[in-house]
Amino acid sequence: MKDIKRKERGEGKKAIILLSGGLDSAVTLYYAMREGYQCYCLAFDYGQRHAVEMAFARKIASKAGVPLKIVSLRLPWKGSSLVDDRMPLPVDRTLRAISKGIPSTYVPARNKMFISIAASYAEAIGAYAIFIGAHFQDSSGYPDCRIEFLKAKDKAIRLGTKRGLENKLRLEFPLIRKNKSQIIRLGAKLGVPFGYTWSCYSGGRYPCGRCDSCILRAKGFDEAGLKDPLYAKTRG
Amino acid sequence: MKDIKRKERGEGKKAIILLSGGLDSAVTLYYAMREGYQCYCLAFDYGQRHAVEMAFARKIASKAGVPLKIVSLRLPWKGSSLVDDRMPLPVDRTLRAISKGIPSTYVPARNKMFISIAASYAEAIGAYAIFIGAHFQDSSGYPDCRIEFLKAKDKAIRLGTKRGLENKLRLEFPLIRKNKSQIIRLGAKLGVPFGYTWSCYSGGRYPCGRCDSCILRAKGFDEAGLKDPLYAKTRG
Repeated sequence: MKDIKRKERGEGKKAIILLSGGLDSAVTLYYAMREGYQCYCLAFDYGQRHAVEMAFARKIASKAGVPLKIVSLRLPWKGSSLVDDRMPLPVDRTLRAISKGIPSTYVPARNKMFISIAASYAEAIGAYAIFIGAHFQDSSGYPDCRIEFLKAKDKAIRLGTKRGLENKLRLEFPLIRKNKSQIIRLGAKLGVPFGYTWSCYSGGRYPCGRCDSCILRAKGFDEAGLKDPLYAKTRG
Repeated sequence: MKDIKRKERGEGKKAIILLSGGLDSAVTLYYAMREGYQCYCLAFDYGQRHAVEMAFARKIASKAGVPLKIVSLRLPWKGSSLVDDRMPLPVDRTLRAISKGIPSTYVPARNKMFISIAASYAEAIGAYAIFIGAHFQDSSGYPDCRIEFLKAKDKAIRLGTKRGLENKLRLEFPLIRKNKSQIIRLGAKLGVPFGYTWSCYSGGRYPCGRCDSCILRAKGFDEAGLKDPLYAKTRG
């Protein structure tokens, strides 16, 4: 917990947490709560095939006792296998294959859009920080999860919003340098109910266990030496 | 036209143009067309009280013979007199008052959201540039019209999108250093049909002539020594 104690506390200030229903954003929410922020969650319905994500975002926010707003962002273009049923999802890839290149599950400029809309929300309610659970190690090579991009976004927020110009708004990405097992270990310490988080891209009743996201999650729990309660719950 | 000839031509490459129905974005569209880009316009229905803007965006795109996509972005928060009927619009302000501070018409992080969503569109269709008609001289002091912000956004696009990383996408803001009368003079040279552009914030049948935007437009035409065909049409 040293890395948490070392940080400045939120002191009850408002923060926006980008919540996806996944594991990383849930850990980010609990991290921000632990830092003392008054958290306002924001999730997006962008036509993702795994609509189950929204249900899990609701579960997590409710479990954590924080408000959640869902923004509908249905764009009249596709460009990702995550929103386009006609594009096949990559499955059964090796970790090496997953770590190479930008996969078809990349949703064009997704984090860029989410952060920008979160900045609007932050201006409207007077929040001091926007938290995003992006990380690049053990992740899928999405350009908008890179630290250089997030730093540029932080700068854009500081320069291009009213609160940013008043030095009252910044972007926080506390997981950025962690790998999946480190994130899971942190989440376990923070008491994140992992059974209420969803990672699978395919969005069936049970996680498929074959998509990149399921593979990375399983590897993370393995390396952390922990059991994944979602699998325990859904698979018996 | 020197500033146009000096620039690299678009060479038939695709570009996204953020179109608002207003004068600045129409000049930007004609500028990008003149540069040789194959233009795809993008407009937003974000619950603005001047819905007449959307009608004018359609008119301009149709007149220019370019496609237009309209994205619905209804956010579950307000924070601006431009989207909140309960907040009064500032009227009859002096130019000095207009130039000071951030007015209530500032829509939280609007350009930030629009540019980010345009980046998603650019990734989906393979565009090389995103054009925005932002400028700060003679404008209303919106933080997201500042050159420092736009440069940070350009950097975020280059670092956080697939096309940006391939050096195939950038943000263009050709009007940024121009004042309103210079923009109007440029538009006149480019053949922009100003009668098809709408600036008024209040969104009645005729421009009110009293809001900041009407005042700045009238000043711009005055200084450019040109007659505003919109006023001639609607009032004369």
